[in-house]
Amino acid sequence: MGELELIEYIRGLASGHAPEWLQVGIGDDAAVIALPSGDSIVLTTDMLVEGTHFEPGTPPRAIGRKAVARALSDIAALAARPLCVVAAVCFNKECNREFQRRICKAVWEASLQFAAPLVGGDVSEGEGPLSLTVTAVGLPGPKGVVTRAGAQAGDAVCVTGTLGGSLRGRHLSFTPRIAEALDLAERFELHAMIDVSDGLSTDALHIAQASGRGITLKAEAIPVSEDALALSREGEGHEDPLRHALNDGEDYELVFCLPQRDAKAAAASGVLGTLVSIIGAVTSEKDSFIVRPGGAREPLRGGGWEHLTG
Amino acid sequence: MGELELIEYIRGLASGHAPEWLQVGIGDDAAVIALPSGDSIVLTTDMLVEGTHFEPGTPPRAIGRKAVARALSDIAALAARPLCVVAAVCFNKECNREFQRRICKAVWEASLQFAAPLVGGDVSEGEGPLSLTVTAVGLPGPKGVVTRAGAQAGDAVCVTGTLGGSLRGRHLSFTPRIAEALDLAERFELHAMIDVSDGLSTDALHIAQASGRGITLKAEAIPVSEDALALSREGEGHEDPLRHALNDGEDYELVFCLPQRDAKAAAASGVLGTLVSIIGAVTSEKDSFIVRPGGAREPLRGGGWEHLTG
Repeated sequence: MGELELIEYIRGLASGHAPEWLQVGIGDDAAVIALPSGDSIVLTTDMLVEGTHFEPGTPPRAIGRKAVARALSDIAALAARPLCVVAAVCFNKECNREFQRRICKAVWEASLQFAAPLVGGDVSEGEGPLSLTVTAVGLPGPKGVVTRAGAQAGDAVCVTGTLGGSLRGRHLSFTPRIAEALDLAERFELHAMIDVSDGLSTDALHIAQASGRGITLKAEAIPVSEDALALSREGEGHEDPLRHALNDGEDYELVFCLPQRDAKAAAASGVLGTLVSIIGAVTSEKDSFIVRPGGAREPLRGGGWEHLTG
Repeated sequence: MGELELIEYIRGLASGHAPEWLQVGIGDDAAVIALPSGDSIVLTTDMLVEGTHFEPGTPPRAIGRKAVARALSDIAALAARPLCVVAAVCFNKECNREFQRRICKAVWEASLQFAAPLVGGDVSEGEGPLSLTVTAVGLPGPKGVVTRAGAQAGDAVCVTGTLGGSLRGRHLSFTPRIAEALDLAERFELHAMIDVSDGLSTDALHIAQASGRGITLKAEAIPVSEDALALSREGEGHEDPLRHALNDGEDYELVFCLPQRDAKAAAASGVLGTLVSIIGAVTSEKDSFIVRPGGAREPLRGGGWEHLTG
């Protein structure tokens, strides 16, 4: 059973039960909750598991940092500002006292670095892999939140940075695009946004599905990372670097939809020194496509990482 | 390394960095965060691990329910009202599709039952035990929150319900004392409160330490549960049922400190049909004690469950 199928199952259970204070519920990168006095909070939870999200032997500093950064990337995806995090960690018997302290210190330091201080937590012990769950609370930016669901036919589809090959190191060292998301939301009319965790192909489809629109990506416009090129050169099968950019995932870049004029301005200026590329368009079609360099159009399939598909 | 030692380590890192909006931080049952418009939220995260918090073979319905109920018991401990939860679950390869759905459904149903609907989550896969992390958001009750830190010399120490032997079943089936906490806070001047997760002895010491006071418990006043009596009868060592009541933990009852007059009224009336017992007093002494039936006073030692002490 795929993760997405399970999320759909839960959405099915929840449908018809949405409380009036729930502005964005299950199925986006984060939930948005309206509080009595008029504040809204943005809430997301994210689990990191040894052997799944990082290899055994990864330095504790990198593990703690990634756990926090991943959760905050979901806050960024809604163009929200992080406020704080709480963390639950499960150690196993191989985690000695020094290692445990290092993990906790790494979570604390990352939470400070990203201006979302750790305010609480839980420590458990179990057989099995080390795991960390970070829950982040954010506040909507001045322009409110941006969800996956607002893409409009005619919008351009843009992405920050470059994609693919994050396993070479960026999946541990990335900085969540919090400042970039807030800056984009401030300057442009963002209709929809998501962070690239599952892979561009899958995450673009998430926007398409949530928005009830099609997305057509232009293969040659997709910014391929140096890491994707290197993986392609080094890999046994010399896989097309574009496949890495489309499907590897864990890029934690932002994919967003906005009017063409805004997209041109964003691509021309970049955002806080980061590349912005126009990689496609939102359509009124039912399906999503990718246009190959020769002009051939083929269905866009989610080839990104999805848990529980094995 | 003990869990408490690790929490002290993190508190040490965090000391001097507390943001002005953080009303209650690391070291209580939940954090309290002041938001710009005047709302405060109460936030707590809690991880449930197979083999540690429930046995393999436990029905999924009970697992999901316990994960939600434990987190909400921490919300109750602050006399807050639950608003919503998010959940992160890590399945292993033995969890088939039907089992996965049952866990998710159980979390959803428990969240509805306790009026804290599930608004988001994360699903992962890893080698090792099934684990669930539930993060709960609450709102302070009408009288504000009650922390561990306000016990005053001369206060009575009270507890709801009966204690001990929760492993016979109550650790899975308990209902968090949310309504009871709100009712107590409404009617009485609560100075400090905690939920009994680690065991009465340890949790009373948590209040004593956080409040900078001593607590003296009266052994014969501690309400011993039928389960503790049964365990004592059935157990190999016929351990004193009082030891079960003091140390077993996972009772999820409320321990609270309040003026003697209020305590007498609470004990006379109970709370929403639940027993309230006066079990001791807060003192201005540095240390905490338990007075045995014959009158002998001995130091109160935390004998409750603590993770990571093995």
